[in-house]
Amino acid sequence: MKNSIGREIPDYLLAAGREVFQGNNYRDGMEYKKQGPKVRAFVKPKESKLVASVREAIENCGLKSGMTVSFHHHFRDGDYIVNIVMKEIEAMGIRDITIAASSMGTAHNPVAKMIEDGVVTGLQTSGIRGKMGDVVSRGKLKTPAVIRSHGGRVRAVEMGEVHIDVAFIGAPSSDEYGNARGKGGKSDCGCLSYSAVDAKYADKVVIITDTLLPFPNFPPSIEAVDVDCVVVVDEIGDAGKIASQAARITQDPRDLKMAEDCVKVMAATEYFRDGFSFQTGAGGPSLAVNRFIEPLMVERGIKIKWALGGIVTPTVELLNKGLIENIMDTQDFDTGAVKSISEHPRHFEITTSQYANPMNKGAFVNKLDFVVLAALEIDTDFNVNVVTGSDGILRGAPGGHPDASAGAKCTIIVTPLVRGRIPTVCDSVVTVTTPGESVDVLVTDYGIAVNPSRRDLTEAITAAGIKLTSIEALRDKAYSLVGKPEDLQFHDKVVAIIEARDGTILDVVRQIKDYEF
Amino acid sequence: MKNSIGREIPDYLLAAGREVFQGNNYRDGMEYKKQGPKVRAFVKPKESKLVASVREAIENCGLKSGMTVSFHHHFRDGDYIVNIVMKEIEAMGIRDITIAASSMGTAHNPVAKMIEDGVVTGLQTSGIRGKMGDVVSRGKLKTPAVIRSHGGRVRAVEMGEVHIDVAFIGAPSSDEYGNARGKGGKSDCGCLSYSAVDAKYADKVVIITDTLLPFPNFPPSIEAVDVDCVVVVDEIGDAGKIASQAARITQDPRDLKMAEDCVKVMAATEYFRDGFSFQTGAGGPSLAVNRFIEPLMVERGIKIKWALGGIVTPTVELLNKGLIENIMDTQDFDTGAVKSISEHPRHFEITTSQYANPMNKGAFVNKLDFVVLAALEIDTDFNVNVVTGSDGILRGAPGGHPDASAGAKCTIIVTPLVRGRIPTVCDSVVTVTTPGESVDVLVTDYGIAVNPSRRDLTEAITAAGIKLTSIEALRDKAYSLVGKPEDLQFHDKVVAIIEARDGTILDVVRQIKDYEF
Repeated sequence: MKNSIGREIPDYLLAAGREVFQGNNYRDGMEYKKQGPKVRAFVKPKESKLVASVREAIENCGLKSGMTVSFHHHFRDGDYIVNIVMKEIEAMGIRDITIAASSMGTAHNPVAKMIEDGVVTGLQTSGIRGKMGDVVSRGKLKTPAVIRSHGGRVRAVEMGEVHIDVAFIGAPSSDEYGNARGKGGKSDCGCLSYSAVDAKYADKVVIITDTLLPFPNFPPSIEAVDVDCVVVVDEIGDAGKIASQAARITQDPRDLKMAEDCVKVMAATEYFRDGFSFQTGAGGPSLAVNRFIEPLMVERGIKIKWALGGIVTPTVELLNKGLIENIMDTQDFDTGAVKSISEHPRHFEITTSQYANPMNKGAFVNKLDFVVLAALEIDTDFNVNVVTGSDGILRGAPGGHPDASAGAKCTIIVTPLVRGRIPTVCDSVVTVTTPGESVDVLVTDYGIAVNPSRRDLTEAITAAGIKLTSIEALRDKAYSLVGKPEDLQFHDKVVAIIEARDGTILDVVRQIKDYEF
Repeated sequence: MKNSIGREIPDYLLAAGREVFQGNNYRDGMEYKKQGPKVRAFVKPKESKLVASVREAIENCGLKSGMTVSFHHHFRDGDYIVNIVMKEIEAMGIRDITIAASSMGTAHNPVAKMIEDGVVTGLQTSGIRGKMGDVVSRGKLKTPAVIRSHGGRVRAVEMGEVHIDVAFIGAPSSDEYGNARGKGGKSDCGCLSYSAVDAKYADKVVIITDTLLPFPNFPPSIEAVDVDCVVVVDEIGDAGKIASQAARITQDPRDLKMAEDCVKVMAATEYFRDGFSFQTGAGGPSLAVNRFIEPLMVERGIKIKWALGGIVTPTVELLNKGLIENIMDTQDFDTGAVKSISEHPRHFEITTSQYANPMNKGAFVNKLDFVVLAALEIDTDFNVNVVTGSDGILRGAPGGHPDASAGAKCTIIVTPLVRGRIPTVCDSVVTVTTPGESVDVLVTDYGIAVNPSRRDLTEAITAAGIKLTSIEALRDKAYSLVGKPEDLQFHDKVVAIIEARDGTILDVVRQIKDYEF
């Protein structure tokens, strides 16, 4: 059946209470029972939870074929944990594993072969990229991958839709009892926000670290009371890729122009007042917004009460200048952010539940004034795609995009009208990852369009002397520049489900057809 | 049937899986499923959770007759919250309420009448004192009160044996979304450790504060994601009673002698080495231990790695002198402790689950070297009573006593041999609240006795030149000084169940008979 944004969802997916997407607030007020883990009590005092190897940890936790294991992505492209653990699982002859990761990237290319070999038969994640994206898109994974936003993942775990048998949590430092932190080691990632739900809801929790510190390793992101065992390995990741050097703000005039226009739009709204709240993505134009927002804030004498999300050095600089009062942090992208969360008293780690879970009693995204985000594609219904590429292959991640977009009072997408020979603004995105209902403004290098549902914003922006166009005109311009691409060819088989943050089905990704010449 | 410490537990209490106590480690390794709350999702962003009154909060939460409400005792004798809420519940005609509090005291005398009137028919708590102790001991509560240790309470809530319908959490500061702290207001209590489990496991959570601060009130003890509504009242308590002036260390020569002996015993064991861990109670001789431990640590050049539990100024002073490296705090007894937790970077708030839950994966008490505690009575099996007075009336609280005693490698009870005309050391305590299995050493003003099960300690202490006696000799001395009191007279009716920390039944308290002359 078609869902409320017109996407065809095969009926066979609508089993066990699964429903199609019916609008952002369809489940507002819904009552449900949170699930709990199966815990083995450590009544008798013991000194240490150290085990000698990852294999011993896997054995202690009773991991068997058919079970679900989880990972976080705070180490991003520098992560060694997934490969260390999965290699051991494969070597032990365990098969039919579901990986429930907060996200996965090119560091996990070796998993692609495990998918083909049947070691991994299920995938629950935000991002699928690289070789994994390729094998999943080509129908090699036994079950459809389930792609969730960061808030949606926490929701699914807390509601019991994803049950984690064993969580493997890479930690830059830990004590022998499992008090684990994103800091204090040789490969600091800053915070461990994505792992909080794994620690609280997985039956078994294993900490894998390369830096063992004296008990108590405090304050911990992961509490020892939730940890079954601790393993020390040589290296949990590639430090330089875990926290990279700060990205320089783009010098591309096109990106700078869009960032400047974005800030003009923000400043035209009623939300641009002292004490506003703000999130940006880590991409080029989003990052550049930090540069243009600063002089305007100084000019108007206003401050940002709190900045949210994955954090980069430009945000930290605004904190240090006193233009941001608090940073609420779920992920640190560079060394500047890692340093700041370790040192600045108003730079706080929050869990992904606090950040974005749509089914708790009110996450931070619910109180956002602005979010500025990117898109791979955006269509004339303002639906955004950040997951499938122009070739129809899985190569991205919704991340916090659907969460922040749904929560913020003013959601701005900043994207060039075309990339290479591909139009960004189009009739219909290949895959909907954020519904148009959540998107208020589109800023491109060829003009700005406001979602017709936000007449208030149209009026405010126009009143500020900013010229607007329609999203249809932007699409027409894009097509006139690069032509309208031919439709991609897919098989019927669903290879991935795009779950809306509330657990309904927003869209599906089908198996790509090989090009025929 | 009799439990493993010889206490007669009526069979009718052994329903629904309840068992008698069978030793401290009977449930080691037991697997169970943690329970979760029933949550109403706040999907649609809303700005504020403020409601106009406690009555409106009660109505919003759907509180009905027969339900369970919870409270914390961080405000101790200065608490206004219980009376504010219960008065409103009574006024609304709601009856048959079970109160599940972390502890209750004389501040809650008005509840005694509600027990007699049937507004309150169930009581789950650590402490019952004052008028409430009197009416419960006289059989006026409809169901037996259940008395738990702090760790046992968290266990019972997490395992679903206590289900909280509405948690009312008094907070010295909160924002409009419910991020609540023990600091930042006009009546600071330091931490909110006891409330953490209520916030995570109650269906509905109400924050009651007298100090509303801007969002985000960070870092929070109670997270907004768990909070349904926020109420602002004039005063949450009597600030002077919430955090009292620091108690002066006793000048009583008897208490000082016992404290000195206690420290000698500690210093004679293998556990008194650099990096040891330590907890004391807040009573006179326990407090004085801090005074005698300091010069000995300096002399030997050793430090305490971490101190645990309810915190008092003498502990804070050792932290400030660098003799304690970390304080792990569950409750602040005086203004010195409240100030320290707000300012000192190594003075940490922990939850009661981290502190003492026996059924999680390893609480702090499990790694304690020493705990020094008091007793109302101790018998020749080393069983301790801290709940019923010499008149058989409920007037105390197990608190963390059973938890720390079970966890610590060396548990020392410090108590005078007699109090007034009452022997402290006796044949059999009126009520067992900490089993003798958990107690290693008894220090009195008439001599020191070691539990025969700890031959290692006997040898070490003797080797240090400290003279030991037997607990039987101490009992004989006590009886020779004040005589052996006649047995108290009880009815058959059980008025309170003393639950062991693992959920089994350690003892029962029966209805006291009125004196007959």
